[in-house]
Amino acid sequence: MYQLGVVHRTIHRADRAAADRLAAFGSATVHEAMGRVGLLKPYMRPIHPGQQVSGTAVTVLLQPGDNWMLHVAAEQIQPGDIVVAAVTAECSDGYFGDLLATSFLSRGARGLVIDAGVRDVKTLGEMGFPVWSKAISAKGCIKATLGSVNIPVVCAGMLVTPGDVIVADDDGVVCVPAARAAATVEAAAAREANEGAKRDKLASGVLGLDMYKMREPLAQAGLRYVD
Amino acid sequence: MYQLGVVHRTIHRADRAAADRLAAFGSATVHEAMGRVGLLKPYMRPIHPGQQVSGTAVTVLLQPGDNWMLHVAAEQIQPGDIVVAAVTAECSDGYFGDLLATSFLSRGARGLVIDAGVRDVKTLGEMGFPVWSKAISAKGCIKATLGSVNIPVVCAGMLVTPGDVIVADDDGVVCVPAARAAATVEAAAAREANEGAKRDKLASGVLGLDMYKMREPLAQAGLRYVD
Amino acid sequence: MYQLGVVHRTIHRADRAAADRLAAFGSATVHEAMGRVGLLKPYMRPIHPGQQVSGTAVTVLLQPGDNWMLHVAAEQIQPGDIVVAAVTAECSDGYFGDLLATSFLSRGARGLVIDAGVRDVKTLGEMGFPVWSKAISAKGCIKATLGSVNIPVVCAGMLVTPGDVIVADDDGVVCVPAARAAATVEAAAAREANEGAKRDKLASGVLGLDMYKMREPLAQAGLRYVD
Amino acid sequence: MYQLGVVHRTIHRADRAAADRLAAFGSATVHEAMGRVGLLKPYMRPIHPGQQVSGTAVTVLLQPGDNWMLHVAAEQIQPGDIVVAAVTAECSDGYFGDLLATSFLSRGARGLVIDAGVRDVKTLGEMGFPVWSKAISAKGCIKATLGSVNIPVVCAGMLVTPGDVIVADDDGVVCVPAARAAATVEAAAAREANEGAKRDKLASGVLGLDMYKMREPLAQAGLRYVD
Amino acid sequence: MYQLGVVHRTIHRADRAAADRLAAFGSATVHEAMGRVGLLKPYMRPIHPGQQVSGTAVTVLLQPGDNWMLHVAAEQIQPGDIVVAAVTAECSDGYFGDLLATSFLSRGARGLVIDAGVRDVKTLGEMGFPVWSKAISAKGCIKATLGSVNIPVVCAGMLVTPGDVIVADDDGVVCVPAARAAATVEAAAAREANEGAKRDKLASGVLGLDMYKMREPLAQAGLRYVD
Amino acid sequence: MYQLGVVHRTIHRADRAAADRLAAFGSATVHEAMGRVGLLKPYMRPIHPGQQVSGTAVTVLLQPGDNWMLHVAAEQIQPGDIVVAAVTAECSDGYFGDLLATSFLSRGARGLVIDAGVRDVKTLGEMGFPVWSKAISAKGCIKATLGSVNIPVVCAGMLVTPGDVIVADDDGVVCVPAARAAATVEAAAAREANEGAKRDKLASGVLGLDMYKMREPLAQAGLRYVD
Repeated sequence: MYQLGVVHRTIHRADRAAADRLAAFGSATVHEAMGRVGLLKPYMRPIHPGQQVSGTAVTVLLQPGDNWMLHVAAEQIQPGDIVVAAVTAECSDGYFGDLLATSFLSRGARGLVIDAGVRDVKTLGEMGFPVWSKAISAKGCIKATLGSVNIPVVCAGMLVTPGDVIVADDDGVVCVPAARAAATVEAAAAREANEGAKRDKLASGVLGLDMYKMREPLAQAGLRYVD
Repeated sequence: MYQLGVVHRTIHRADRAAADRLAAFGSATVHEAMGRVGLLKPYMRPIHPGQQVSGTAVTVLLQPGDNWMLHVAAEQIQPGDIVVAAVTAECSDGYFGDLLATSFLSRGARGLVIDAGVRDVKTLGEMGFPVWSKAISAKGCIKATLGSVNIPVVCAGMLVTPGDVIVADDDGVVCVPAARAAATVEAAAAREANEGAKRDKLASGVLGLDMYKMREPLAQAGLRYVD
Repeated sequence: MYQLGVVHRTIHRADRAAADRLAAFGSATVHEAMGRVGLLKPYMRPIHPGQQVSGTAVTVLLQPGDNWMLHVAAEQIQPGDIVVAAVTAECSDGYFGDLLATSFLSRGARGLVIDAGVRDVKTLGEMGFPVWSKAISAKGCIKATLGSVNIPVVCAGMLVTPGDVIVADDDGVVCVPAARAAATVEAAAAREANEGAKRDKLASGVLGLDMYKMREPLAQAGLRYVD
Repeated sequence: MYQLGVVHRTIHRADRAAADRLAAFGSATVHEAMGRVGLLKPYMRPIHPGQQVSGTAVTVLLQPGDNWMLHVAAEQIQPGDIVVAAVTAECSDGYFGDLLATSFLSRGARGLVIDAGVRDVKTLGEMGFPVWSKAISAKGCIKATLGSVNIPVVCAGMLVTPGDVIVADDDGVVCVPAARAAATVEAAAAREANEGAKRDKLASGVLGLDMYKMREPLAQAGLRYVD
Repeated sequence: MYQLGVVHRTIHRADRAAADRLAAFGSATVHEAMGRVGLLKPYMRPIHPGQQVSGTAVTVLLQPGDNWMLHVAAEQIQPGDIVVAAVTAECSDGYFGDLLATSFLSRGARGLVIDAGVRDVKTLGEMGFPVWSKAISAKGCIKATLGSVNIPVVCAGMLVTPGDVIVADDDGVVCVPAARAAATVEAAAAREANEGAKRDKLASGVLGLDMYKMREPLAQAGLRYVD
Repeated sequence: MYQLGVVHRTIHRADRAAADRLAAFGSATVHEAMGRVGLLKPYMRPIHPGQQVSGTAVTVLLQPGDNWMLHVAAEQIQPGDIVVAAVTAECSDGYFGDLLATSFLSRGARGLVIDAGVRDVKTLGEMGFPVWSKAISAKGCIKATLGSVNIPVVCAGMLVTPGDVIVADDDGVVCVPAARAAATVEAAAAREANEGAKRDKLASGVLGLDMYKMREPLAQAGLRYVD
């Protein structure tokens, strides 16, 4: 349940080094490293493919059809932040375009994750400002009602606390609690350590059935082969 | 409510110069310039990114699974037109492919906006024929039942009258009534006039809060800052 | 109704030459050549545009959130196969990523059609491994419950029997029964034979109304022209 | 394309007798009698089963989350009217509850058809006020922005002009243009005239195949029977 | 992949006694007794609550917007059958109303399961004819194109073979292969045998944790209690 | 972000008297009294109409297809509680049926709000156990993976903390934070105080336009009347 009309200027951002390193692992590996929690619903899609970022969350709660609080949020952005925007009701309006992106970029923002629509998508692509959204819509917004900045929000079904690490790429968006950022880097690194060796084996024709020693558990589970 | 089996050969097209100029502003600016009306539902998406067109509407009413009237519509196309197709029921079939696109192009059409599916999307991209649609489907159509051409139609929730201006790009599709085309050009131009200056300011780090003088109305609305 | 826990090692693959030739016609032409049957629902979309393949189906039935059987299926892949994966319940999890793709490629697979989600989509694009799916999700899978391999499955609303030919491109995915593969090649070739001539005529300005002799049947159906 | 901020006090209502008589035929028969046009999308559902009404349309255009214009519309209601409400954007908020229903009833309204949400549904059922809507939601509305009353609106995909006849029951909602109301009564009556005889025949075991003489056209279409 | 234009007059119906007995267990118990397979997608809902039936499947494949084959199917109905209708493409039209229901009832049909829309729902309720459908729509159908009767069809994602047992109630629709009908009766009866005892225990306040001896496996899985 | 495998036995329940009194106001009035926050998404619907309850939340986090934690939750229920269940991924399976309802009732539960599916809906109706859910499905669950009990969960887009008050009826489900329960009772009572007088006025034909003194602000906003 949300408190409206509040801006928290002081938030506890996750460790910067950990927040920065998580991008390279990608959302799928980070999600695994977290024990398969933290993923926003898969309807959150990048508006342009190929972007891969991580950063600390500045959160915004918006009202339907009203993007006033995105201007308020801009002032709270620090270099390395990703803005995470939720709306108090379902809305596909275009809350964000090239002017706000210019402002966010000048504050050091690395991207936007918004549970609503955006516009000026062609220009956003040319600017290289990464956005994950639920919709694209030319419909702009008014500036009339208060939401909040830097309160915990529910974005695409996931609770995001200000300062959490956001990892986003073509596979989706994952939220890593600030307190778990460093441990997640380690767990993700451990997962990746032997991926190269596995990939080489599989490329050479070794089957996952053998590499992962699955034949016996499959047989025990009752798998039958028929010729 | 639709009349079936009628082709209107004479329609009142919007002023050509205005219809041509609106493309450059893009759907988001035009939608604002119209007072935030005229936008088709955001499920209408370009089948290839990067297209940006405007033109006068030739409308078609289609029956589900039947694209006969698109051939009838082709004859009514004049250079600078965009075909706007509605269907009498929900349908995702592929009504339009490379052969019809070839025919439309030879008549001078600038694009197609269709509340249904299309196919041959790879070839349409190679031809550079812009299409906004609700779906993509390999399923072709029969040619058996009458619809109409150049009657007012409801396309993706918006009423489109023959001769209206259609503006379409990556952000969506907007319909500008013929009678308002010239005024909309002016309003859109006015909106754009000082966008460059705004962008420069924001890029230099000036906040929207200050540039738009939002701090006082936000305080009056009750916004509280917490450290 | 599915039998769980069975792997059929011997399947009757469609004629190889026919299976290989169908890719070039594309899904739309093949769907027409089949008499407009065999199309999977249009929510099945390529994760990257521009891929166009055909091949023989190796089928997999998966459990929700569990991709164990994809490893079992890998062993049954022969060069020229396309894996077709169904799930026993709605699921958008990411069942397939770059490691499985490496394994599938090493077995000679030409692609994957899956009624669920995939991940590592950027890497899959770099690898050039074609995938058609219902969703993209970073959420991985467990390996705990049995499904089946090479039984008839329902994928995106279409019954696919092992050995059937799958034709997939930007327009969608079509299933051609093995027994009809050769006849479908002929029918598709016949359809294409005079497409070039038609395209030239339409490009020169001849109307489909005249080329297809539609004016009389339209008049008989009651079409009225109004000036 | 809508004009905002206008209330038309004078509308041309369909012939009262015809408007009143259409309820008894029901939406399915009226839709047939119209030649299968005029049906609102099937997501428009009654909030309580068993209601069956017809009346003349008073139309309202609403803004998202704002029900101010429903109060404006109330004054324009005459006995025998049905209020048809559209919204300028997708919205599922609860625009209408028991107080507005009390007011509408006191003006003689026969029901509400709204392309959005309503609330107080239990009380509305107890009051016997018929409503067809897209959603049910406890979320109320503000009263801040202008729409219009008695302009043509697009409601659930259908163009409704003030004064048209609305026929609504458990099967859906149909719009009959005022000018066609009388003819539609006749056509609907003609359709119903021999329904009783048909029903008796079918109940006695006569097959539709024989009653409608379908066997020959089915055979000509190529239907084969296999034992 | 479907064959069009064929009616199979001879089908192998499941054992009548087994088909009749399954209704009493309900879809949930039968689905469990089958090992959790056979359930049609949950968007298949009864048009009226409280119906609970089982019977042998007569299958129909329909074309979009065309209900001709339902008349053909009527002749193939035997007492105790349930008609299962699939469509070759997504369609929400109203394929079935009170006249067809009268005919089906006179043939001894126990219900209809249709992956499309129906109409006359109020009358169908008064007649007590049970229907499970994807939609309700006043839009009627034409009678122009061939489908098939009594071929295997995919209905709401499930493969249904003519003669299979259909069990349908407020929880959904399950398909039991004819060959497994008798065994499923036994398995369902075994499941139900001690349900009464369980219910009494739970009603008396015994926890499922204790009745099912879950405390130890939960602890082993790592569940921690915090005060 | 969720912690898995934890059961909090001690939660701070909202004031009992306040929690009990809120039911009578209904979800719409409570939502208004809260300042229009706290509403779960409107896809949460009662499985039977006419139920109206309030109570203190016991929360459960479930895994997809697994209802093990509902048994764990049962032990934490105290008289006057409503169980609020979230799932870590989208799932429509039937997590809850008559046996669990028997157990919940014996513990004093007043209802269930679940962001997934339930089954045995006919029996649940006969038992009078109120349920709000996203889906109905005959598909049962396994008992294999840990979730948590009495942690904050996101249910249908809303953050619910254990001990919050849940108010649910035919209009939807609202969550009132424990700390605001008493104040919300007062605000709701104040709203209701003069509803009777308003209703009488409106019933007598007084327009909302006059009763709420809207004519002047409408005129100031620019509303024009046209004859």
